[in-house]
Amino acid sequence: MSTQKLFHIAVVGSSGAVGRQILRLLEERNFPVGDLKLLASKRSAGTKVPFKGREITVEEAGPGSFEGVDIAFFSAGGDVSRELVPHAVESGAVCIDNTNAFRMDPEVPLIVPEVNLDRLNEHKGIIANPNCSTIQMVAALKPLYDRFGISRIIVSTYQAVSGAGSRAVDELVRQSRRFLDGEEDKPELLPVASLPVKHRIAFNAIPQIDKFHDNGFTNEEMKMIQETKKILGEEGLDVTATCVRIPVLYGHSESVYVELKEEYDLEEVKSLLASAPGIVLQDNPAEQQYPLASNAAGRLETYVGRVRRDLSNPKALNLWIVSDNLLKGAAWNAVQIGEYIAIEQ
Amino acid sequence: MSTQKLFHIAVVGSSGAVGRQILRLLEERNFPVGDLKLLASKRSAGTKVPFKGREITVEEAGPGSFEGVDIAFFSAGGDVSRELVPHAVESGAVCIDNTNAFRMDPEVPLIVPEVNLDRLNEHKGIIANPNCSTIQMVAALKPLYDRFGISRIIVSTYQAVSGAGSRAVDELVRQSRRFLDGEEDKPELLPVASLPVKHRIAFNAIPQIDKFHDNGFTNEEMKMIQETKKILGEEGLDVTATCVRIPVLYGHSESVYVELKEEYDLEEVKSLLASAPGIVLQDNPAEQQYPLASNAAGRLETYVGRVRRDLSNPKALNLWIVSDNLLKGAAWNAVQIGEYIAIEQ
Repeated sequence: MSTQKLFHIAVVGSSGAVGRQILRLLEERNFPVGDLKLLASKRSAGTKVPFKGREITVEEAGPGSFEGVDIAFFSAGGDVSRELVPHAVESGAVCIDNTNAFRMDPEVPLIVPEVNLDRLNEHKGIIANPNCSTIQMVAALKPLYDRFGISRIIVSTYQAVSGAGSRAVDELVRQSRRFLDGEEDKPELLPVASLPVKHRIAFNAIPQIDKFHDNGFTNEEMKMIQETKKILGEEGLDVTATCVRIPVLYGHSESVYVELKEEYDLEEVKSLLASAPGIVLQDNPAEQQYPLASNAAGRLETYVGRVRRDLSNPKALNLWIVSDNLLKGAAWNAVQIGEYIAIEQ
Repeated sequence: MSTQKLFHIAVVGSSGAVGRQILRLLEERNFPVGDLKLLASKRSAGTKVPFKGREITVEEAGPGSFEGVDIAFFSAGGDVSRELVPHAVESGAVCIDNTNAFRMDPEVPLIVPEVNLDRLNEHKGIIANPNCSTIQMVAALKPLYDRFGISRIIVSTYQAVSGAGSRAVDELVRQSRRFLDGEEDKPELLPVASLPVKHRIAFNAIPQIDKFHDNGFTNEEMKMIQETKKILGEEGLDVTATCVRIPVLYGHSESVYVELKEEYDLEEVKSLLASAPGIVLQDNPAEQQYPLASNAAGRLETYVGRVRRDLSNPKALNLWIVSDNLLKGAAWNAVQIGEYIAIEQ
């Protein structure tokens, strides 16, 4: 960091899968943390969490929790954000919200630093972190968007269970064991905790993430469609998404068909990807090198491979994009935003 | 069957994953089997296999194995088919070949009975069974093709390991156990047995099925592209495929974007699918009903759901298509062809 100023940080949802990664990244990145307030639901209050050798007690989050806070990270679900973010803003905190609560609010910038950092300063106290599956896709497509323009995106996702929280990770592990032992296991959580019907995720593929809209798309699919348009700043962009949960713990994969507005040179595309910030080009079919969730898990970067010209449309391109959904897809994107805010203050 | 004639059947590759399913289906469907010759590699010769209460000894397959055989099912790999199918044809057998050996041969009909049974009689002794991922897709798209025409297909697959044979099933099971126990397991087989680099399939997604072509597509992807055009009889059809192996044992899933040539009514599309032969429409978002590999495994039908109008192209449609890759994707399609041959003789 270019400043010695220390920031009073709050992390709401600090005991969740994303909250824990935010804390780890603040520590590892040596974020200029002064006071640190860990906030969570009543259930988790009282837990002690280590941070840089200290032990910090988790407190119950409430409207009065944000006095003196400079930057507040929210990842405790949309309802908590809708309730508490306005209080945090009123207290003077800049809120980096990892939930769906404010993403499509025209007053709230939706930021992926590699893509639209220029919109960051438009914030009025709230900056939204996009959906995990959106972030890695727009990060990878940005260099192609800038150079050629994009007219159409058709994406099918292969999403890890950790996107549904740490209880979903436990469910996949438990179900897999039971399945391998030939035992029955009643699914309890997936695909959507709040809906009545549950499906087995172990050794299966579930084409439902989040609830359905009347148009037959799921909320996860609509997020990818709407957020991609907002982040790239192009309402007329055609985006189609099919979002699927597969039995992977960490790391979302995406099969992306993209139509560029201009003819392109394939080597130029690869070199644009190879030099783009936050992107690693992993594309060597002869050596069987391409992105894999197993390699991307735990890494901050977004990996791109299987880069090939479409056989039926010479302006179209096919890509395979993989990133850790809890890191670039959530915690790391949020902490990155926090770093830029810290630099500017 | 409409005839009392019994057929002298040979099954080449009778100890493999598909061969075993062919035998099970011949038994269950009460196929008019007279003599039954089970053929395999030298390694499997001598094994005894039960069939309708008898015990049949597997023999080593050779050029002289086909005397008196009426119908020969081949599923022992492309090399075996290339070597032995011509001998079987010379002996007078009709060969139903489940390998890649003759699929793109213009002299050989490539048959999915629900789609192009009218081409069956063009055979000169060889009928090719398409690739598993192709069969279920064209079976589901056929009623839409007939009614509206199709201009473009973009498919991303979620393919089960059994498509790579029973050793790949063993590998996924073994790797999954080790992974859950926190132990290392060196991948031995996947993604491609004959290539040097192996990747873990347990809790992962591998965007490689079969070898790469120079154009960056895999052989599996090229099969889907070329076979779809041949089966639908439309060389100009635009098809794009991305084929991905996921940790599922049985049942391929496919996310399919399809552009029709005409405007369509969504309810008519659903009713066409619901009444199509071999297709089960499973599409009720309100009840969280859609096709799942876990439900399709062991079934002969192809399941279609997530049927929805594309938001950016009103002539386009998105579908989720699932079928058991060893059954409709291989053994059942082959036995179906056999049944039609039997009826006609």
